[in-house]
Amino acid sequence: MRLLPRDERFFDLFIAVAERTVEAAGLLTEMLQADENHRGRLVDSIKRLEHEADQLTHEVVTRLDRSFITPLDREDIHALASGLDDVMDLIDGLARRAKIFHVGEAPTGAILLAEVVKQASEQILIAVKGLHTNKNGVLPACVIVKRLEEEGDSLYHEWLAKLFDGSPDPMMVIKWKEIYDNLEKTLDCAEDAANVLESISIKHG
Amino acid sequence: MRLLPRDERFFDLFIAVAERTVEAAGLLTEMLQADENHRGRLVDSIKRLEHEADQLTHEVVTRLDRSFITPLDREDIHALASGLDDVMDLIDGLARRAKIFHVGEAPTGAILLAEVVKQASEQILIAVKGLHTNKNGVLPACVIVKRLEEEGDSLYHEWLAKLFDGSPDPMMVIKWKEIYDNLEKTLDCAEDAANVLESISIKHG
Amino acid sequence: MRLLPRDERFFDLFIAVAERTVEAAGLLTEMLQADENHRGRLVDSIKRLEHEADQLTHEVVTRLDRSFITPLDREDIHALASGLDDVMDLIDGLARRAKIFHVGEAPTGAILLAEVVKQASEQILIAVKGLHTNKNGVLPACVIVKRLEEEGDSLYHEWLAKLFDGSPDPMMVIKWKEIYDNLEKTLDCAEDAANVLESISIKHG
Repeated sequence: MRLLPRDERFFDLFIAVAERTVEAAGLLTEMLQADENHRGRLVDSIKRLEHEADQLTHEVVTRLDRSFITPLDREDIHALASGLDDVMDLIDGLARRAKIFHVGEAPTGAILLAEVVKQASEQILIAVKGLHTNKNGVLPACVIVKRLEEEGDSLYHEWLAKLFDGSPDPMMVIKWKEIYDNLEKTLDCAEDAANVLESISIKHG
Repeated sequence: MRLLPRDERFFDLFIAVAERTVEAAGLLTEMLQADENHRGRLVDSIKRLEHEADQLTHEVVTRLDRSFITPLDREDIHALASGLDDVMDLIDGLARRAKIFHVGEAPTGAILLAEVVKQASEQILIAVKGLHTNKNGVLPACVIVKRLEEEGDSLYHEWLAKLFDGSPDPMMVIKWKEIYDNLEKTLDCAEDAANVLESISIKHG
Repeated sequence: MRLLPRDERFFDLFIAVAERTVEAAGLLTEMLQADENHRGRLVDSIKRLEHEADQLTHEVVTRLDRSFITPLDREDIHALASGLDDVMDLIDGLARRAKIFHVGEAPTGAILLAEVVKQASEQILIAVKGLHTNKNGVLPACVIVKRLEEEGDSLYHEWLAKLFDGSPDPMMVIKWKEIYDNLEKTLDCAEDAANVLESISIKHG
């Protein structure tokens, strides 16, 4: 009933990365809702999680290079590792930008999008755990990630339109456009990770 | 004389995606030439094409996971599917942005670049059809795509320079820079797709 | 003691690309320190190097498609070629943008980041040469590239923060943010290339 190679440790590493991503996405949402002078602490916590996830991903890749598995499995593991890594890097980058830009109060759209990122990370964690223990749980979680990406896409376009309505301040447009763009990109990467998980699940189904 | 795996259906799917891309690129050019209040309808038509292409690409990937082909062929098919998908997504994104940004009348450079995107899509369609029926048609079409990418690159830099000349309005720079950047990126992705097509053609030549 | 396939020519091609990248990174630093009317000549020299590197990379890819090596080696060579290519393209794009934007005098941060790009290119050249002649030289050079990426990351955030401090001119923010973003992205690509080199070195170690 299991979907990946014999080396048990791969599962633990992926679960550990996915858990940190869920936590970081939660802190990102919190950060956008906090006021400016409480943000620094949350940004630092996200950075710490990103650093831990990075070490874990590095261990996956090193193990991969040393393990005897087929090229196809190797490709999947590598794609999954780099998909999860991208999501985490984008969350970290978002938090740091929000701080550096002195963005002030976040528009509702940014908070809503960060919530969607959090929900998508939770589903990815479910799918990653499913690879190990319950292959029937993988596909439904991937389907939800895709639905969340679509929901995020429509939120993104709705709030980007609001940002350009009327005669906006160019600096506000520069700052929030970058944050919206990166929130949407994070959901794209989450969907990429879900696609890899789906593909692993179908191949070994 | 054929260049890809035995499953005939792959060809049909790729041709169907490439046809929709040509149509979408044509609508994009039309949209940039239309005035603001006629753009919405064209944006919706492009979105519809993008959605259809997305379903088709999804079918390619699902079939791929279930088919028995060598890792190398698999890699090529996957790269081709995602290359074509990128071109379509960028065209769709461009159309939506032009609408959301209320960009007003398009500068000549944007229309010229959209024309180049359209021509590149037409050559990709020729190359994709060539994979199935006429392998001698693939390479010349790929060569034209590369020439078009170079032409687009030089148009891009020329018109980007014009955008920054003098004392431009920052909001206009934000809007048109993003559109020019994405037009250029679309041509890069078209070139990537052409490189995959070329590589398939050489390997099976 | 050698790490890549039997075709000696691959090494020469990679070394030739890496050498051009070092030279281009040096010219980029020089360009940012030069005053506006001396920049055009340096931009042209970088373009020439980018063009040469492009031809060399094209030769690698063509040879690859014609050579009989395992899928895994093929994947590595391809990843290395495209990693080096990305670094060069970004350096060329940076130089052209600095000219097109009429950026005026470069802030210290941009010059410091360009220096880090140059140092990273030098380490990549050392690692690439090491593949052929001295596999023990590969890993230490890769470790330095990663440290340089971290150093660049922290310079990037420090100087991006300075750019957004106070009430900056939106046009200056648009221009320098793009340049900083691309300098940081160049270091990310250099790190990607180092990761491929590391991975080749571990697998064949």
